Amino acid sequence: MEPNVKAREAAKTIDALITPSLLLDRGRLERNVQRLAERARKLGVVLRPHMKTAKSIDVARGVFPREPGAITVSTIAEAEYFAGHGFRDMTYAVGMSPVSAKRAMEICRRTGADVKLLLDSVEQADALADVRETTGVTPSVFIELDCDDHRGGLKPDDPRLLEVAERVVAAGAKLVGVLAHAGESYGLSTPDALVEAAENERSATVRAAETLRAHGHACPIVSLGSTPTAHFAQKLEGVTELRAGVYMFFDLVQHGVGVCTIDDIAISVLATVIGAKPEKGWVLVDAGWMALSRDRGTANQQLDQGYGVVCDEKGRVLEDVVVSQASQEHGILAIRNGSGKSMPELPVGTRIRILPNHACAMAAQHDFYSVINGESPEIEARWERIRGW
Amino acid sequence: MEPNVKAREAAKTIDALITPSLLLDRGRLERNVQRLAERARKLGVVLRPHMKTAKSIDVARGVFPREPGAITVSTIAEAEYFAGHGFRDMTYAVGMSPVSAKRAMEICRRTGADVKLLLDSVEQADALADVRETTGVTPSVFIELDCDDHRGGLKPDDPRLLEVAERVVAAGAKLVGVLAHAGESYGLSTPDALVEAAENERSATVRAAETLRAHGHACPIVSLGSTPTAHFAQKLEGVTELRAGVYMFFDLVQHGVGVCTIDDIAISVLATVIGAKPEKGWVLVDAGWMALSRDRGTANQQLDQGYGVVCDEKGRVLEDVVVSQASQEHGILAIRNGSGKSMPELPVGTRIRILPNHACAMAAQHDFYSVINGESPEIEARWERIRGW
Repeated sequence: MEPNVKAREAAKTIDALITPSLLLDRGRLERNVQRLAERARKLGVVLRPHMKTAKSIDVARGVFPREPGAITVSTIAEAEYFAGHGFRDMTYAVGMSPVSAKRAMEICRRTGADVKLLLDSVEQADALADVRETTGVTPSVFIELDCDDHRGGLKPDDPRLLEVAERVVAAGAKLVGVLAHAGESYGLSTPDALVEAAENERSATVRAAETLRAHGHACPIVSLGSTPTAHFAQKLEGVTELRAGVYMFFDLVQHGVGVCTIDDIAISVLATVIGAKPEKGWVLVDAGWMALSRDRGTANQQLDQGYGVVCDEKGRVLEDVVVSQASQEHGILAIRNGSGKSMPELPVGTRIRILPNHACAMAAQHDFYSVINGESPEIEARWERIRGW
Repeated sequence: MEPNVKAREAAKTIDALITPSLLLDRGRLERNVQRLAERARKLGVVLRPHMKTAKSIDVARGVFPREPGAITVSTIAEAEYFAGHGFRDMTYAVGMSPVSAKRAMEICRRTGADVKLLLDSVEQADALADVRETTGVTPSVFIELDCDDHRGGLKPDDPRLLEVAERVVAAGAKLVGVLAHAGESYGLSTPDALVEAAENERSATVRAAETLRAHGHACPIVSLGSTPTAHFAQKLEGVTELRAGVYMFFDLVQHGVGVCTIDDIAISVLATVIGAKPEKGWVLVDAGWMALSRDRGTANQQLDQGYGVVCDEKGRVLEDVVVSQASQEHGILAIRNGSGKSMPELPVGTRIRILPNHACAMAAQHDFYSVINGESPEIEARWERIRGW
């Protein structure tokens, strides 16, 4: 596939890009990154961005222009990649298995990084003794909390919290704190509900930390976050750090939750019109779910955005045009149900941009970003992404 | 990421694999490939397999053990890859744009391959003159037919059929035939309905070919296919070739349609248990939508399989256990709604396999297959996949 790669590398403007292609708007990215960094500063907490969305050292360098800071990762492959680029303080925010814990500690041993682990059971805590012995590294460990019935974690008042903490210590590992993720906040859509979810996440996490401290565990880190709660928390007393990932790019789901405007969304897929069915009001493009992902996160929101909102080649929204259906390499553009608009003229060969339901999922379908800025057709850079586990 | 890659390459058995990992059962693959090859032979048509599912030269070599044969591709990147591996007869089964047509013809010029194009409009036909002039290659062209209102294509009795054919010839391109895809057959679930859909696809395609022949176009190739109709067509008079892709691996959607059994499904994702919420009946694993895809193709079928059916490490189905929810790197296993079963014991560290809703989508989330055979833990080979456009 040499020639394709070369063609992409050579592209100086977006009209020279092969479609479908992933675009990243640098100005929007910088604005989004700045916005949450300022919030964290005002709230007096460390921001530990989650790299699961961007998966790119170039994006990370924009977030940390001076030197590598504290980050969150979703795979051991990410931990390895960012350790290779000088990051030393990482939280692997997925419950550990004995194997993933050993892989993480090997990275620590080799690079001097501190990859913190996550667990919520005595079985996992007990496994740490072998992890420590095998790798020669003392694991740093968070206990995962469940603040909203979203996924894993212990409730702050679960008696197992203390039991797990004791077993972590007994296994010779270092208990560094508690960690929560208010994942249910993605389902909210009013400022009041988001403020309440953020406060619930805060109070649950702080309560657990206090219980641990009352029993002799220092619990220095109190970590929480989700993109919605990070943007709506009014105070963060007792919290030491905030985690968020999708905030760098934003997407239609976050727009539906009320965290960003459409104009904040920093990634899109460039696509080409390949046909039409005027009798059905359809325009066909060469971006299907392979390029957009199968994510339909707005399906249960007030405004269903189909497989994405359609913009013209410069990124200006085509009002009420969405990707209504997607097969592997085909997208069908149509006017949103109930709209009075009619489909604009989009002859074969026309290029459009499609905004994501879910930025993490759309970006994962691509190997690199073509970096642009606003309506300019110029491609400023090509930034690689990593994948795999 | 060297060490990860090495760890994977070194894996001789599935317990040495990093999870999540994509497994491919060679025995099932061979059986599925054999089954449709025999059908095509009996029906007297050429089988032109679609490589969009497997995207792997190793899988293609299994389908064509003697020498490269006729294939279908879904991206120009696939055309380039398979041309580089000696394939000469390819159909790019996505409507052409002027740019994709030129890229395809460049491959033909460089390798001597014949990459056939697809179109359904006079605009596309007119663009062929420039494609021919710029690349020095005479494009071979199919007219796309619409037999079931699924996507693109002209109805067989649309007067534009003849107009498009004339414009293809006028542009100096070669009209090689007509092509249909009964995509709506994925929504069916009874043998009678599938037989009817297959006959409808056949008769529509043959009718269009006859119209073209009556007006002096030879129309040598009459191409149709979808995995369901390919397996249910009772006769294929007038048809010259059959296309199908997902039949090599099969999946839960095809099982729901009634084309395969669960035991025919050749790919799965190996995952590790990382936690549990006994009070909710949940077991958490390290395979979320990043490994499984967001595809929920069974959601509208009679039996909703969630994000996939769960098997033990050897591939034996755990009755009524499905992946009920998925986030980026987390899957939640639960007992299917309405089942009387209870969740089996699955301690942290246990390995399981997850069968796909949609094989094309699950496989696309991975860079390689670990090839196994049945219940044996041995990994016979590592087969790379390609991606991109």
